[in-house]
Amino acid sequence: MAMAPNAPGAITAGPDLETIRAAHRRIAPHIHRTPVMTSASLDAMTGAQLYFKCENLQKTGSFKIRGATNAIFSLRQEEARRGVVTHSSGNHAAAVALAARWRGIRAWIVMPSNAPEAKRKAVEAYGGEITFCEPNLAARETTAAEIIRQTGAVLIHPFDDDRIIAGQATAAVELLEHVPAADFILTPVSGGGLLSGTAIVAKSLRPAIHVVGCEPKNADDAYRSLAAGHIEPMENSSTIADGLRASLAERTFAILRRLVNQIVLVTEEEIVAATRLVWERMKLVIEPSAAVAVAPLLAHKLPVEGKKVGVILSGGNLDLARLPFA
Amino acid sequence: MAMAPNAPGAITAGPDLETIRAAHRRIAPHIHRTPVMTSASLDAMTGAQLYFKCENLQKTGSFKIRGATNAIFSLRQEEARRGVVTHSSGNHAAAVALAARWRGIRAWIVMPSNAPEAKRKAVEAYGGEITFCEPNLAARETTAAEIIRQTGAVLIHPFDDDRIIAGQATAAVELLEHVPAADFILTPVSGGGLLSGTAIVAKSLRPAIHVVGCEPKNADDAYRSLAAGHIEPMENSSTIADGLRASLAERTFAILRRLVNQIVLVTEEEIVAATRLVWERMKLVIEPSAAVAVAPLLAHKLPVEGKKVGVILSGGNLDLARLPFA
Repeated sequence: MAMAPNAPGAITAGPDLETIRAAHRRIAPHIHRTPVMTSASLDAMTGAQLYFKCENLQKTGSFKIRGATNAIFSLRQEEARRGVVTHSSGNHAAAVALAARWRGIRAWIVMPSNAPEAKRKAVEAYGGEITFCEPNLAARETTAAEIIRQTGAVLIHPFDDDRIIAGQATAAVELLEHVPAADFILTPVSGGGLLSGTAIVAKSLRPAIHVVGCEPKNADDAYRSLAAGHIEPMENSSTIADGLRASLAERTFAILRRLVNQIVLVTEEEIVAATRLVWERMKLVIEPSAAVAVAPLLAHKLPVEGKKVGVILSGGNLDLARLPFA
Repeated sequence: MAMAPNAPGAITAGPDLETIRAAHRRIAPHIHRTPVMTSASLDAMTGAQLYFKCENLQKTGSFKIRGATNAIFSLRQEEARRGVVTHSSGNHAAAVALAARWRGIRAWIVMPSNAPEAKRKAVEAYGGEITFCEPNLAARETTAAEIIRQTGAVLIHPFDDDRIIAGQATAAVELLEHVPAADFILTPVSGGGLLSGTAIVAKSLRPAIHVVGCEPKNADDAYRSLAAGHIEPMENSSTIADGLRASLAERTFAILRRLVNQIVLVTEEEIVAATRLVWERMKLVIEPSAAVAVAPLLAHKLPVEGKKVGVILSGGNLDLARLPFA
């Protein structure tokens, strides 16, 4: 965390709406403005009007390219020429590799040895230079630190970085331009980059909106942390939502405490059912981590009847040869 | 075929562009204007600029709702009140059931006993009344004729009907509004409704366009028919593209002879690879029948390098529990 460029403030932690709009202008030439889709059958099942922001259709197959592009194109030239390094279970890794290629610099990627094959191949395809490590946070950070020592590369942290948070927040900007009267907005939560950015945008534009973080019951550190009032570490997460195994940082925790209304938990069965339903009815390939933000609606865990609900479908990368429901 | 309302003409067979535009106005309140998507990675693989018309995201999960809605909303009130009947392996069946529900009339659906479960369930969900029959054309027609005898219902043929052709053609109208300078337009071919409607639109709007029908090698009756100059029946088709097992009618054959530049054949392996690639890279669930129009591009069977290519992704309905690549 030592390389994070902006220290968290007390109550005003995180980027503000103007910073997020600047990030949006910075990344717009590179990323897709993804479609917002609706589904008559999912509306009928939930009694709500659902608006799905399709970041699975984003470049690299997830929203992570937004933050990575903003961070890498924010680097001063003398920083950028040293290259960048990150550690990630997958989607952030691919995003950093591609954004670095766009900027014309090297990217070293530390990945856990159990990262899905599809995500490894994507990093390689974008020219990222992979170092594998044990699948735990300590090993990731040690390995990244060693690469920094050897190369002078700049760390692009997956979420503990205001430039990353501002970039991820741009998905909510686009979603709320499409559905400005949203009553709820839902995202998955892992390290909290997407959720904190979304919360800043949503509460700035529409103070009455209900911001909900969605988390696997089997990886419920954000839920426990917000309940306890301090960061509780992730322990032994075993969830099919492989993108949601990180723990909050102080920076993201501070934002979530201030702006998120609720964390809702979903079971593994609910995640698999939601994944399958979105594939079947919406014809969209989403990864289980994305389905985590659909599952609470289908399981009737939120009072959304008659309400407008924005959902960020965070990504669509997974091994098709190992589907949860085949 | 006896119930088809419009006899084929000689060289001017099929609906004209004005009729198709009228169909478009008739169905527009009911159907989605589906998005046209692009993919940097598929462009890189093929050397072309590909524009995918996403009829997998259409109501009922396929383009078939266009033709069914046009036909059913074209019925005079005294015809409509007798209800409608059709025979179909799946997507047309669901489309007729839903369009009939929209019009508030009964729909009897004759389905082959081997129709995919997902397609059967869709027909039931839309309120269609299913009669199963042996999986061959003779059994389908006999069963439908018996229902007509008993009920007086109006046959909505899956493709041998100018109203159906005009409806299916509206997908190409929308695609060519998006990419008016297309050099190629590709669709799958089965009974020829989609391909003949597409060809009429494409050659009317852009005479130099290359219209390509795409067909499984294992169900190559259209290819053989156009080569022979007369309709060759389908025999023992065994393709994973379960939507492409019908044979041409005289009506569609006459249009294809006049307006289609080429039928291109693809193997089962090429169909599976194309299905998987679209899922993986575009995050779109398409059925193998839709992938038949992507496969020739990936297999470099057409001279599309540097060209603009419109592709109609015809549908996205399949049993997720029995995937070709799991």
